[in-house]
Amino acid sequence: MKEKSIEKVDKKYFTFAEPPNELILESGEKLGPIKIAYETYGALNANQSNAVLVEHAFSGDAHVAGYHESDDKPGWWDDLIGPGKALDTNKYFVICSNVIGGCRGTTGPSSIDPKTGKPYALTFPIVTIADMVKAQKYLIDHLGIKKLLSVIGGSMGGMQVLQWVASYHDTVRSAIPIATTLKHSPQQIAFDEVGRQAVMADPAWLGGNYYDFGQPERGLAVARMIGHITYMSDRSMEDKFSRKLKEKNKNVKFTTDFEVEGYLRYRGDTFVKRFDANSYLYITKAMDYFDLAGDKFIPKNRKIDVRFLVVAFKSDWLYPAYQAQEIVKLLKTHRVNTTYCEINSTYGHDAFLVEIKKESHLIKHFLRSVYGESGEVNESRSS
Amino acid sequence: MKEKSIEKVDKKYFTFAEPPNELILESGEKLGPIKIAYETYGALNANQSNAVLVEHAFSGDAHVAGYHESDDKPGWWDDLIGPGKALDTNKYFVICSNVIGGCRGTTGPSSIDPKTGKPYALTFPIVTIADMVKAQKYLIDHLGIKKLLSVIGGSMGGMQVLQWVASYHDTVRSAIPIATTLKHSPQQIAFDEVGRQAVMADPAWLGGNYYDFGQPERGLAVARMIGHITYMSDRSMEDKFSRKLKEKNKNVKFTTDFEVEGYLRYRGDTFVKRFDANSYLYITKAMDYFDLAGDKFIPKNRKIDVRFLVVAFKSDWLYPAYQAQEIVKLLKTHRVNTTYCEINSTYGHDAFLVEIKKESHLIKHFLRSVYGESGEVNESRSS
Repeated sequence: MKEKSIEKVDKKYFTFAEPPNELILESGEKLGPIKIAYETYGALNANQSNAVLVEHAFSGDAHVAGYHESDDKPGWWDDLIGPGKALDTNKYFVICSNVIGGCRGTTGPSSIDPKTGKPYALTFPIVTIADMVKAQKYLIDHLGIKKLLSVIGGSMGGMQVLQWVASYHDTVRSAIPIATTLKHSPQQIAFDEVGRQAVMADPAWLGGNYYDFGQPERGLAVARMIGHITYMSDRSMEDKFSRKLKEKNKNVKFTTDFEVEGYLRYRGDTFVKRFDANSYLYITKAMDYFDLAGDKFIPKNRKIDVRFLVVAFKSDWLYPAYQAQEIVKLLKTHRVNTTYCEINSTYGHDAFLVEIKKESHLIKHFLRSVYGESGEVNESRSS
Repeated sequence: MKEKSIEKVDKKYFTFAEPPNELILESGEKLGPIKIAYETYGALNANQSNAVLVEHAFSGDAHVAGYHESDDKPGWWDDLIGPGKALDTNKYFVICSNVIGGCRGTTGPSSIDPKTGKPYALTFPIVTIADMVKAQKYLIDHLGIKKLLSVIGGSMGGMQVLQWVASYHDTVRSAIPIATTLKHSPQQIAFDEVGRQAVMADPAWLGGNYYDFGQPERGLAVARMIGHITYMSDRSMEDKFSRKLKEKNKNVKFTTDFEVEGYLRYRGDTFVKRFDANSYLYITKAMDYFDLAGDKFIPKNRKIDVRFLVVAFKSDWLYPAYQAQEIVKLLKTHRVNTTYCEINSTYGHDAFLVEIKKESHLIKHFLRSVYGESGEVNESRSS
């Protein structure tokens, strides 16, 4: 039986700025004011102990669950979030915000620079995963939350989870990084770089100043197609497409012959309608710069009181399980209470969005145990 | 000690045409006359029993060994071919030809169509791996060879090896397919398709009619960058680049930060100087269409008298070892004398060009044994 979704949610906005009206980025550059698009589900309890922050992946956004007024499909992790689901909104207060540098409501390169009245484009400063998390910290403060029950996310969302612990370990009770890494490998950088090159090779990119003319659609579509190959596995592509053929126009060469080609073209074409090309550049760069290896994650002699559930998927070759194991190894070195689970799946990197049942089981029990420990609810009796 | 290379070789040409002046392709279309660029090394013996045909991979060419007059580096598999090497030119007569559809001397889309006096461009017919091999058969006949001692090649070269056995098993004494497959998987098709899309997304491609204006360089470079990622392994990239940084212009965003980015850009930029964009489309399509699964490789009840050495590499994720094992399984089903070797290597798909020492050992002994069997030389005594 399919559980119910949250019926109606709204996107909210929070605008903030450090004095004097700007956020100081990791690079030293300043950015502001910053608008953050976010959504919340459920209610914050009296002592603010039930807040769970969900971090989205590269092309995700704040709309993680429920339906907007005009939606015909729910948020991107709806199967995990709602009444009775793993992130039970009858119990937890769930928050998700769009990252800075993004294009789904939060300030990014497509936003209007108040100094010029025009989109930032490439005058937007380079932002890092740490900057994204720093901006979220302002949101969490604004919402009156002193300590998060948990931070959870997959892929780039998982990097933000790790960064939360690196930047604000006192503010986090537990962390659930999924299908992610402490640092981008050269292969991961390489795939991102080819995507960026595809965008920038499109003459319609215009050095980033395309906002009056329309997106560099063809380049961005190619970039997205590359991404989609890396999100699936050899096996999941075989299961889904094999060598099945499409109807084709035999008079036109190099049109789609195989279903897999049609799928990739469709994915590329729909992506350009919803995602800003410059955001593609900035956010992939933020991932490539991400590097919490060694002491950068947990400095020597720092004691951290955060419980971890680290999840990886066997067929994920974009963020292979060995990278999750490196996270676990580092946590164990620091005697951090860590549970590691490698889920058997053929879905490749996409598994973190698809293997909901297996993830739900793990997350539900992990969170219940962390929440129970806080003394709020004795879950071992109530369940 | 490095063995000596062949000192001087020349590219040769052979022009042929079936009556009436055209080659009938697998599609039923006709193409001709066809010029084939090829090279030979060593001498054909009196009874033509020492000929080894080398098949090149996607972007390779006929210049597999030795030095041309102006060369500062030798052919692409020079370490394997020459006096005393695995393909010992004191003993064997080695032949390599450029594939049809290519751009390195053999008729392809950049060649002049004698009917119009202009480059074929997209009027060039779709060619298949079987068509490439059919053209080579004309060359072999022209050279007066009734039976090849061996056909050897890696990657797309390996597909041609398999196709030789499928098309002309009576003409082949032994076959050495390396790092290859019986058919392209959807993932392999997907990578090729993204490369094609990158080429065709470049406005300079002009529907294929760019010959008067210059190559669609940016699109072709992006395509090649994608290819290069798939040729290496996660591990070999880590070993070669890790997260090492390049000198960068900090004032220009999205220039190369990491060495791996610089490497890929360099590879992309040099490729466009030597490879025709339309050939990229035609040859990748030929690979994608390739499908010798099941009875297409060896029809039921056909007895084939060909010895096989099948080679795969452990870290090759573009042509994973399971695909080589499928070839072996099919051969064993048909009771074909087959040796299978999975070489331990971290070089990914590139291993077939890099792991020369390991390949040499296997190939030298395998060929010696096949050649010995022919009664020409009793290798077991002479060695």
